[in-house]
Amino acid sequence: MDKHIDTIGFIGLGVMGGSMASHLLAAGYKLLVNTRSPVKAAMLLETGAVWRESAAHVASSCAVVITMVGYPAEVEGLYFGPGGLIENARPGTILIDMSTSSPDLAARIYKTAAARGIRALDAPVSGGDLGAKNATLTIMAGGDSEVFEQIRPLFEAMGKTIILQGGPGAGQHTKMANQIAIAGSLLGAVESIIYAEKAGLDPSKVLVSISSGSAGSWQLTNNGQKILSEDFSPGFYVKHFRKDLGIALDSARRLGADLPLLALAERLFATLESKGLGDLGTQVLYKLYAGGHE
Amino acid sequence: MDKHIDTIGFIGLGVMGGSMASHLLAAGYKLLVNTRSPVKAAMLLETGAVWRESAAHVASSCAVVITMVGYPAEVEGLYFGPGGLIENARPGTILIDMSTSSPDLAARIYKTAAARGIRALDAPVSGGDLGAKNATLTIMAGGDSEVFEQIRPLFEAMGKTIILQGGPGAGQHTKMANQIAIAGSLLGAVESIIYAEKAGLDPSKVLVSISSGSAGSWQLTNNGQKILSEDFSPGFYVKHFRKDLGIALDSARRLGADLPLLALAERLFATLESKGLGDLGTQVLYKLYAGGHE
Repeated sequence: MDKHIDTIGFIGLGVMGGSMASHLLAAGYKLLVNTRSPVKAAMLLETGAVWRESAAHVASSCAVVITMVGYPAEVEGLYFGPGGLIENARPGTILIDMSTSSPDLAARIYKTAAARGIRALDAPVSGGDLGAKNATLTIMAGGDSEVFEQIRPLFEAMGKTIILQGGPGAGQHTKMANQIAIAGSLLGAVESIIYAEKAGLDPSKVLVSISSGSAGSWQLTNNGQKILSEDFSPGFYVKHFRKDLGIALDSARRLGADLPLLALAERLFATLESKGLGDLGTQVLYKLYAGGHE
Repeated sequence: MDKHIDTIGFIGLGVMGGSMASHLLAAGYKLLVNTRSPVKAAMLLETGAVWRESAAHVASSCAVVITMVGYPAEVEGLYFGPGGLIENARPGTILIDMSTSSPDLAARIYKTAAARGIRALDAPVSGGDLGAKNATLTIMAGGDSEVFEQIRPLFEAMGKTIILQGGPGAGQHTKMANQIAIAGSLLGAVESIIYAEKAGLDPSKVLVSISSGSAGSWQLTNNGQKILSEDFSPGFYVKHFRKDLGIALDSARRLGADLPLLALAERLFATLESKGLGDLGTQVLYKLYAGGHE
């Protein structure tokens, strides 16, 4: 642990945030926490974390504050406004948003924070609940390299592949590139399985033939297997993936990139969510196809 | 080698067929060959293969005939009609089409051949030129299991993952499922890289962050790297992938499967071919996006 950073604030203790915070605690940092549902902090409080009654209280007494929440609107609420992190953090504080959020919002946080002498990084992750639990997350960061290097020991306590991808927002942009690649492999895997079934093949036998070659992907191997086992529980939530695809599509449009696969995926996941399937895993896309889709 | 099958006919000695035939020769089989461009047979003839002046001549003197050509129209021409394999093969002959072709055509060959006491298998492959060269192809077969078992030693000389997927046409259907999964991963990889570039990121650094997790795929790792190196030479031809996607889309429609990703991929590759890029590798899809596409 870095002796200049002894107290870390952690806001957002869901499945991901809870595991990530526990690694910081285990690495010897003092942890001040706040989260929407206080019950989720119980385990951390038992192992030494200290509860703070609001984000503002966390911000005012930490050298570093990490946020890990679900949606850009929550990120915006946490950082801006009267009770927000930027207004309540001391100059010199480093604010790190590890949520998957909008690149533009990340850039706006960076700029608004800088005007008050506060530093900000965007550092979304991939690797899911298992990566968070095992401290093997991939961390994609955007911001100043000097700040990134200062924070590196914290990132190393939570992740494995840790890369500064560029200036403010670059971490979020990288996460969007990640989600776009996932969308392709996932749609390909689902349509491949649907085709195999309609053709009267045994899809589990088909997966043996096609998974290890140039058709192979993490999605085909992992979500493909879940589909065949009819396991639609969430590894990654439909509602979160839909949110990410929406951010990516909006961002692509602003950047002047016409990405029809991304547009198709966003449309399909919006349909899934509108059918009330937002709390299932992304592999439930299979059901949209199997049941006929619009 | 199987002593009941001593003489094999091999028709179609392109990059794939040439390598595959050479493994059969090396395994000790007597090989009678014919191909559209006789110059492509030169190497095989030097190492012991015997030239036959037509497909009909090959058919009439072999226990097994393997075909490996580019398009369903060529397959149809080879099997049917007065100079065709079915008319000229002796009863008891086994005809194996290892080209990637239409499942319906495979079923038609099977049926027409059976009426003359001839057995047929469809057995398309994946693994590309390297898989053919190293005898590590994946072979996806359709037909009768008794015939498949008889042919297994030949398949084992050319490939590694060898699976009978079902009845006539099942090999071709499996290959279509393979191509659909490829289409998803490839479009995802290309749109991911385009997004990263438009966002001002360094795509090679982005690939390090995203390739090993849930966004990972053979396409992202291999064709992604080729795109970044601006290497658009054919590992797999645009024109052949477009043909495959067309077969898959047509087949999916007959089966009543609405596959919008497949339809999108087919449209993009048709555009690439119409722009005269059919002889480049599938990763040239990147250029369609980079240059703006319709």
